Amino acid sequence: MAKRIYNFNPGPAILPLSVLKKAEGAIVDFMDLGMSILEISHRSKEFDGIIKDAEAGVREVANIPDNYHVLFLQGGASTQFYTVPMNLSPAGGRPAYINTGAWSKKAIKEAKNLFSGTQVLIDTESDGIFTSVPMADEVLVPADAPYLHITSNNTIFGTQWGEFPDTGDVPLVADMSSDIFSKRLDISKFGLIYAGAQKNLGPSGVTLVIIRDDLLDRCPDSVPTMAKYKTQADKKSLFNTPPVFSIFILKLVIDWLKENGGLGKMEEVNMRKGELLYGLMDEMPGFYRGTAEKSSRSLMNVTMRLPSEELEQKFIAEAASRGFHGLKGHRSVGGIRVSMYNALPLEGIENLVSFMSEFAGRNA
Amino acid sequence: MAKRIYNFNPGPAILPLSVLKKAEGAIVDFMDLGMSILEISHRSKEFDGIIKDAEAGVREVANIPDNYHVLFLQGGASTQFYTVPMNLSPAGGRPAYINTGAWSKKAIKEAKNLFSGTQVLIDTESDGIFTSVPMADEVLVPADAPYLHITSNNTIFGTQWGEFPDTGDVPLVADMSSDIFSKRLDISKFGLIYAGAQKNLGPSGVTLVIIRDDLLDRCPDSVPTMAKYKTQADKKSLFNTPPVFSIFILKLVIDWLKENGGLGKMEEVNMRKGELLYGLMDEMPGFYRGTAEKSSRSLMNVTMRLPSEELEQKFIAEAASRGFHGLKGHRSVGGIRVSMYNALPLEGIENLVSFMSEFAGRNA
Repeated sequence: MAKRIYNFNPGPAILPLSVLKKAEGAIVDFMDLGMSILEISHRSKEFDGIIKDAEAGVREVANIPDNYHVLFLQGGASTQFYTVPMNLSPAGGRPAYINTGAWSKKAIKEAKNLFSGTQVLIDTESDGIFTSVPMADEVLVPADAPYLHITSNNTIFGTQWGEFPDTGDVPLVADMSSDIFSKRLDISKFGLIYAGAQKNLGPSGVTLVIIRDDLLDRCPDSVPTMAKYKTQADKKSLFNTPPVFSIFILKLVIDWLKENGGLGKMEEVNMRKGELLYGLMDEMPGFYRGTAEKSSRSLMNVTMRLPSEELEQKFIAEAASRGFHGLKGHRSVGGIRVSMYNALPLEGIENLVSFMSEFAGRNA
Repeated sequence: MAKRIYNFNPGPAILPLSVLKKAEGAIVDFMDLGMSILEISHRSKEFDGIIKDAEAGVREVANIPDNYHVLFLQGGASTQFYTVPMNLSPAGGRPAYINTGAWSKKAIKEAKNLFSGTQVLIDTESDGIFTSVPMADEVLVPADAPYLHITSNNTIFGTQWGEFPDTGDVPLVADMSSDIFSKRLDISKFGLIYAGAQKNLGPSGVTLVIIRDDLLDRCPDSVPTMAKYKTQADKKSLFNTPPVFSIFILKLVIDWLKENGGLGKMEEVNMRKGELLYGLMDEMPGFYRGTAEKSSRSLMNVTMRLPSEELEQKFIAEAASRGFHGLKGHRSVGGIRVSMYNALPLEGIENLVSFMSEFAGRNA
């Protein structure tokens, strides 16, 4: 077996080793059933226990009020891009969006495709690049918007909302795929939250949706059964065969979150990681140039450029040889991206920062 | 570790033990990468190899012509129930369906929801029960139907199409979730085939779609990007993050299929299983009463009633104590259901038939 690397992949991403070991033990024989976790029925009492524990765990770590449903769906955030407007906007409605990155743009495209009146309230794009998100108090939502959609963390551009806007009676909808459960969260500020699991929650193949009860009834009858949140809420995510294994791993990750201090502790560790990494960058801004404005910096994905593309390639290659994997920036931005999700240990950033300091000393 | 049971679950279902062992070896450290199969990027060269091998394997075992695309999607067959009409029917079109069971009915419901002119050409339902499928030559398709949809095997009612109808220029669309790759298959007879993986292809969480190239261009622009087959065909199922692990297991199952003689051999073994089990039932029709008409009997799901519900319960309990698991019929039908997918070894049916013979002797 190879030495475990530090995995800075943007997603699918690092998972806790303890979770992987539990998963390994379920593959040939699960719970002494004489069959695999991959072979059990989704109607079995064993899976009933898994999905109920997953929901209870999600509710516990995020302190989710009783008037919210917790759903485990398929299709990734990209599927939510169309099911959100389908479910939440009336015919002729004018859903409101804020554009802060590549994924926001995709969400807006799907909304516009369904509702031509879709309004983009704020757009931080400049020359194809995004370097910031709005401050919460810059956001003024039209009272007649059926909802306001934001992307809480922009994986590609390394920006993240700090405080969330107060949207009054207009439901706030957030794509939290890349920063969900990375810090404390006041669910009551949101109407709907969704997140592909493959960053902070588990493997790819399952999407977490948290939706306020009253929003279920907005959906027109004409929406396909499988695309209705109400279908899945009524059936507790078991309308059809769910992605059993992905939900099992998500449950294990939530267990790990609980055992490791919950969202408060995650926030503390993630802030410490940010202090270390951004601290070094701020010491050497001529060598490690952050691409996000300081006020919008993400604690999940840290993006930077080095003085030349040659140095960037050298950095990535040397880092890989020392066990730091997945540091190449997204093709649309270039440079270096350090994705440091919950499961990445603090020690990973400490060691990376040491390497970065030493690399800069040799190459500046 | 518990002794491995004979798993007759209708789906998720039994997988080959050799596949499970390979999967187990990929969970903590995959290919000496120092990370799990659950942690690798879907853009990595390792996953590129997996998904290309999966596609090539599917093409090889089913001898798929070059003018068909092989897609790995999410959301199960239930999602296909609405994406098929969305993609293949023009506005005002009258898609044609044949109703042979609970899943056909759900597919028809979604088509009617989108296209009120949806036509049901043949309906074999009688008093809420289905005991047969049509013969191929009974099917007359209106030339103006955008497609004809059938369910090749009815998991709940234990019926299965033998020969498929000749639909001329009207594309034949088949939900093959519960019998795909269980026998030789002439892909060129179909416009589109879809199958949730969790019976013959792998674990839940991935859906195989095989679609003829010319059908991709039928889709109206108004269809959401993620719901368009063309999106997924253009991006080789990598438009967004795919269900990496489910596709990995599907690839291993296809490898297993190839190593074990392909569809011809599966057909041979599945026919032998059917001869054994139906043979016993035909010897003791007063005790094991099949619920499907003989001409429509399924080789994947064998449904039967015993003389009383008490005997059925006794049968299920005694069978379980001997390692035969998952034999309870669907709640809408009752009785016994023997699901015997490809991965169930012939020996499982031999042993079950011995038990059944002995049980009948003691209880007739």
